[in-house]
Amino acid sequence: MKALRVDKNNLSVREIDKPEAGGEALVRVLLSGICNTDLEIARGYAGFKGTIGHEFVGVMDGDGPLSGQRVVGEINAGCGECELCQSGDPRHCAQRTVLGILGRDGAHAEFLRLPVKNLFKVPAGVPDEHAVFTEPLAAACGILERVDIHNGDRVAVMGDGKLGLLCVQVLALSGAHVVLIGKHPEKLRIAERRGIETATVKSGAKRKREFDVVVEASGSSSAFTVALELLRPKGVLVLKSTFAEASDMGQVNQSRLVVDEISIVGSRCGRFEPALDLLKKGALDFDSLISEEYPLSRGVHAMERAAKKGILKVFLRP
Amino acid sequence: MKALRVDKNNLSVREIDKPEAGGEALVRVLLSGICNTDLEIARGYAGFKGTIGHEFVGVMDGDGPLSGQRVVGEINAGCGECELCQSGDPRHCAQRTVLGILGRDGAHAEFLRLPVKNLFKVPAGVPDEHAVFTEPLAAACGILERVDIHNGDRVAVMGDGKLGLLCVQVLALSGAHVVLIGKHPEKLRIAERRGIETATVKSGAKRKREFDVVVEASGSSSAFTVALELLRPKGVLVLKSTFAEASDMGQVNQSRLVVDEISIVGSRCGRFEPALDLLKKGALDFDSLISEEYPLSRGVHAMERAAKKGILKVFLRP
Repeated sequence: MKALRVDKNNLSVREIDKPEAGGEALVRVLLSGICNTDLEIARGYAGFKGTIGHEFVGVMDGDGPLSGQRVVGEINAGCGECELCQSGDPRHCAQRTVLGILGRDGAHAEFLRLPVKNLFKVPAGVPDEHAVFTEPLAAACGILERVDIHNGDRVAVMGDGKLGLLCVQVLALSGAHVVLIGKHPEKLRIAERRGIETATVKSGAKRKREFDVVVEASGSSSAFTVALELLRPKGVLVLKSTFAEASDMGQVNQSRLVVDEISIVGSRCGRFEPALDLLKKGALDFDSLISEEYPLSRGVHAMERAAKKGILKVFLRP
Repeated sequence: MKALRVDKNNLSVREIDKPEAGGEALVRVLLSGICNTDLEIARGYAGFKGTIGHEFVGVMDGDGPLSGQRVVGEINAGCGECELCQSGDPRHCAQRTVLGILGRDGAHAEFLRLPVKNLFKVPAGVPDEHAVFTEPLAAACGILERVDIHNGDRVAVMGDGKLGLLCVQVLALSGAHVVLIGKHPEKLRIAERRGIETATVKSGAKRKREFDVVVEASGSSSAFTVALELLRPKGVLVLKSTFAEASDMGQVNQSRLVVDEISIVGSRCGRFEPALDLLKKGALDFDSLISEEYPLSRGVHAMERAAKKGILKVFLRP
């Protein structure tokens, strides 16, 4: 089968053996989405070798209750034995593998493997092109697992890329007053069409100490200090971006964090249930987030396109 | 009256006018304590000019319900008008003054002024030498306002100075399993006598990913990265130290914060009620934290002594 593979800094579509189920579920991929993390991995982040990709919708192969059904999948596969796994949260299992990121071949392929318990049936009526957003949407919803956001809270999301646009739409549903701060008028307009206030980076940076919560989703390593300045005392900065390079946290005055009792909260993956619920309700605009689609065979080109400024989600179809 | 004053980098005991009450309470200081923040201010931190000192026990001068009573005082004086003040928490009021730190003469003096509502009566039976710890003890208790610590949680406190020794004693009362990590065997022994586990910095630094909560109270600008390594995924780093210089946050890999969903929480002042409750119960060992006492007239020498390695609390008596 075809698969988009990383080996050190070499990215290529190669023919590899179709995986065996081996006690897990085999999924035939219908559509996969390119995430910025894929681009970071291709640049060397996390030292991963193998098939990349972790956003997908597919059809369950073989027997079992989900056989032949459309599915999406939780990307963290825990050991099942440790305290965290036993408590139902394998996302931080020290022995975990992560689809297309850590010790497990990923979704930019014709087939993938995941534990059966990681799979969720896609609600009827949700098109493949929306279902493939389940994983990044869950990551956006995951912010609400990490920080309490109340009706009327003032929330800024920094970054008008794919992740920022998902985060801002999710948070706007919480009843908070949400502002998207970004660089690209055409991307800001996607949020504006949902009734969300927007600001340019220049004007947003002037709104010092205005926000209860700031979500850093720009993927820019220089955004940290700006984000911190926007927070009121006792405010919470949520970090969503992972980088291969170091960020500008070194510029931070630790005394500001102590005197103003700021919290900084890292947020990675979220649970799939709230994301599937939002998909079923059709509560978000996904169509505006889709830029281009390529056959899997053109995966290298698709990755180049996904790295271009102004491009949002790029799909691969096996 | 005598007062220990900072003017730029010049520290001296000077004769100044006794303050007028002017609608606030006038307090005759019985005893004041030198805090590391005093030392930082004398080095230029916060750009303060005036009488330093914010840890005190005194006697309420003039009329009113507390007249002639022994009192301690909340150091933040808010505007009384803003949202934060109206909600009963002036600690982050943007217009606040802070005793001996920001826009208000402090406690290393014969008399000080504070709003009447900032004062708390010292419970009978609590000696002056313990009551003077109310403010730093409240700051230690303030950790529990900022982070939930549960029975059985694994907590490390970094720093065996005055603040660390208060924090570790307070946190040990919460039912958590607490370890004090420090450099000085004789200071670690103070915690050990309370049944608290201790570790040297060298051995403590090896306990990677063991702790649910790490409290950074060492005042060392290089402690940040070590503290972070001790945290399990989803762990919380509490920052208690303010510095004039920059810390080593620049060495931090932001991706670690995101992937392991770490929280960093700044913590400054705490409410006085829980501290006074602990003082009344005699629940902590304060005597071991007292190193030396000087008359206020020797304030400059006392500050030099407080800055020496191995010295814990130094008192000034007007």
